[in-house]
Amino acid sequence: MRPRIHLNAFAMMCAGHQSPGLWRHPADQGFRYTDLDHWTSHARLLDDAGFDALFLADVLGVYDVAGGSRDAAVRAGIQIPLGDPMMPVSAMAAATSSLGFGVTVSTSYEHPYALARRFTTLDHLTKGRVGWNVVTGYLASAAANLGLGEQLAHDQRYEQADEYLEVCRRLWRESWEDDAVVRSADGVYTDPAKVHDIDFHGRWYDVPGPFLCEPSPQRSPVIFQAGASPRGLAFAGRHAEAVFISGPSTTVLAGQVDRLRSAVSDAGRDPASVTVFCQLAPVAAASSSEAADLYAEYLESFSLEGALALFAGWTGLDLTGIDPDQPLRYVESDAGRSALASFTTDDPDREWTVGEVARHLAVGGRGPVAVGSGAEVADQMETWVDETGADGFNLAYAVVPGSFEQVAHHVVPELRRRGRMPSAPVGGTLRERLALR
Amino acid sequence: MRPRIHLNAFAMMCAGHQSPGLWRHPADQGFRYTDLDHWTSHARLLDDAGFDALFLADVLGVYDVAGGSRDAAVRAGIQIPLGDPMMPVSAMAAATSSLGFGVTVSTSYEHPYALARRFTTLDHLTKGRVGWNVVTGYLASAAANLGLGEQLAHDQRYEQADEYLEVCRRLWRESWEDDAVVRSADGVYTDPAKVHDIDFHGRWYDVPGPFLCEPSPQRSPVIFQAGASPRGLAFAGRHAEAVFISGPSTTVLAGQVDRLRSAVSDAGRDPASVTVFCQLAPVAAASSSEAADLYAEYLESFSLEGALALFAGWTGLDLTGIDPDQPLRYVESDAGRSALASFTTDDPDREWTVGEVARHLAVGGRGPVAVGSGAEVADQMETWVDETGADGFNLAYAVVPGSFEQVAHHVVPELRRRGRMPSAPVGGTLRERLALR
Repeated sequence: MRPRIHLNAFAMMCAGHQSPGLWRHPADQGFRYTDLDHWTSHARLLDDAGFDALFLADVLGVYDVAGGSRDAAVRAGIQIPLGDPMMPVSAMAAATSSLGFGVTVSTSYEHPYALARRFTTLDHLTKGRVGWNVVTGYLASAAANLGLGEQLAHDQRYEQADEYLEVCRRLWRESWEDDAVVRSADGVYTDPAKVHDIDFHGRWYDVPGPFLCEPSPQRSPVIFQAGASPRGLAFAGRHAEAVFISGPSTTVLAGQVDRLRSAVSDAGRDPASVTVFCQLAPVAAASSSEAADLYAEYLESFSLEGALALFAGWTGLDLTGIDPDQPLRYVESDAGRSALASFTTDDPDREWTVGEVARHLAVGGRGPVAVGSGAEVADQMETWVDETGADGFNLAYAVVPGSFEQVAHHVVPELRRRGRMPSAPVGGTLRERLALR
Repeated sequence: MRPRIHLNAFAMMCAGHQSPGLWRHPADQGFRYTDLDHWTSHARLLDDAGFDALFLADVLGVYDVAGGSRDAAVRAGIQIPLGDPMMPVSAMAAATSSLGFGVTVSTSYEHPYALARRFTTLDHLTKGRVGWNVVTGYLASAAANLGLGEQLAHDQRYEQADEYLEVCRRLWRESWEDDAVVRSADGVYTDPAKVHDIDFHGRWYDVPGPFLCEPSPQRSPVIFQAGASPRGLAFAGRHAEAVFISGPSTTVLAGQVDRLRSAVSDAGRDPASVTVFCQLAPVAAASSSEAADLYAEYLESFSLEGALALFAGWTGLDLTGIDPDQPLRYVESDAGRSALASFTTDDPDREWTVGEVARHLAVGGRGPVAVGSGAEVADQMETWVDETGADGFNLAYAVVPGSFEQVAHHVVPELRRRGRMPSAPVGGTLRERLALR
């Protein structure tokens, strides 16, 4: 039997995640991100469709690189206004039975002792359905407002993150023994001999004491990670249980999967134990032509200004003010050029204009877009997975919840027919579900 | 018409809040604090009964003063294990229509920029039903594990808290104009001219940028506070919209209410604008004798060791190992004696033993206990409120949800009959509800 395809829905607690301007499309409901019903019905849709998890991105700053100002991002609604992604999780858990919840939290802005408790609490309340997407933060505007002044250099942020995860791991795994809580009739709630100080003293953190929480179903959230730099790969090799990758072609992506599994192996772990999700934005409908029409409609709502704000925030390369028809080879930059190359090089000889780079981000951000009938999108998904060694998809949306409704109605039934998804939702913890092949 | 009596339920995300050992009572369900259903059904009970809010206490440390060790607290289950009180809020909001949620968060452990976003997100998701109980933290064990080393001195913690609230207030109130979000067809999600930097530069915090969230229904959570020290009163005078107080007699309590309202007035605010909740632990039943039997039953589950651990954590006064029959006047201590006096002085000539002080905490902690039929408990509540100028009660529990079920079944109908509570739940934001007299 061919391996299962895992599905993860990629969203954010804001009006538009990675589809600049598409909040103008009449089907988009993203502006309802402040409404709890929006989240519970969204979660129910994904749960019923057999998604493994809803994954919520996050930033704690504003995209203010483009044009040296936040105006473009604010105007185009690029990940601002936004809310805290942990807050809707318990409501979504109460509305669903097996969907997992991956929440993005940076290791740069808060002490691990409090965050570890928050994740354990969610793991209890969701009965073991929580994951943590570990990021170190990339927006200088966040560092400035959170009292860090200058943010740490990239590799140093990962060093700090390594230690942060070690503190959390020890709190989650080594402080409370499985049978510490006894609740005996003679008045012992917890046996003090089975609650241990972690006595951690590192470069960044000192945590002498014990954890405050009793062990939760998974004991620790499933660790998600998305860094593709050499330092990020080393971090993923050590810590990640699930990884998000993105690339313009199966060849590029297969290389990423290989490098990642090598990094996991280098860290002394089983490379197959990590679930790899590649990013894809599906535009699916009852027929190819309907899907093509939808895609064309989406592009009409696209915001060039918003795309350039997003692009500049991600890469440091500010293309604002350059003629959209200008070929990119005339754009001078240091660090930006290689960042740019990473998501436009499906054909290294192709000449890209500024406008083409921007429109490339119109639907679902940096990853590929799959447009077609349910069968056609399922074909493409099978190709991506089978030719790269990935385990499934991190599905970005054009419009929300529309894009996920399309997947639920057109793509999932096809993947089930082909034996690539189980015919009904599977129970268990998120970690147990991701391990299913 | 006599003024309305406001009801607030006082709980914590752990097995036993302020009733040491009572988790052993067969009716207690506190051990289910890790279960989301426990919280949603609890919230629904309070919502149906017309409570204004569920208020969740919190600490981020262990009670380790008694006997110089955490063993007693761990063994007796004194506020450990425990979870993060913000995590269940969205699920409870989804299960209720008008109940408010007061969440305790310390200003000592996390940067205001991230916390302000968390509260705004909750205020959106609850449609304006969230409150923040501002504490500065009193457990040295928390400071040690959260990287503060020694915690700041008491008054300095309040100075920091003043600045912390000022940062939050400016993010909540001054960064985004009411009509900043426009979502216009020409592609403007937010008007950048209506999103302002707060440009805050203080002693503790620098926050140059704008807030990340659009204005929520209340714009800011209702600020709750409980400090009774002179510095705490000054803080409450400046910031608090609702205050928790506790005292052994109406005379003592009336003095507290007066001092508080003076502090509010001194800060240039309307003293009547602050809602004062006094703490009370109700034990209510169909008849006096049933209530007396229940109370006697509760006391049988009481843990002396647990009570002394709680008492030592609160006051710094360690009574561990002293003969419970020893009169307190033989206990030597500096700071502890006055703390002790604050909750046992309903009769200043009364001689208290160590065991009596401990048993005084058996049901609901430091406040008075009201035992009786619905009418009798309602009588006592009316007396407390009418003789002190308080606006309502912060109701502590003996067992959970049992104590609140007793109030819902026996006391609320009586208070409604007497015109002291509205006959059906009232809508609106938490701030609007608390303003009703």
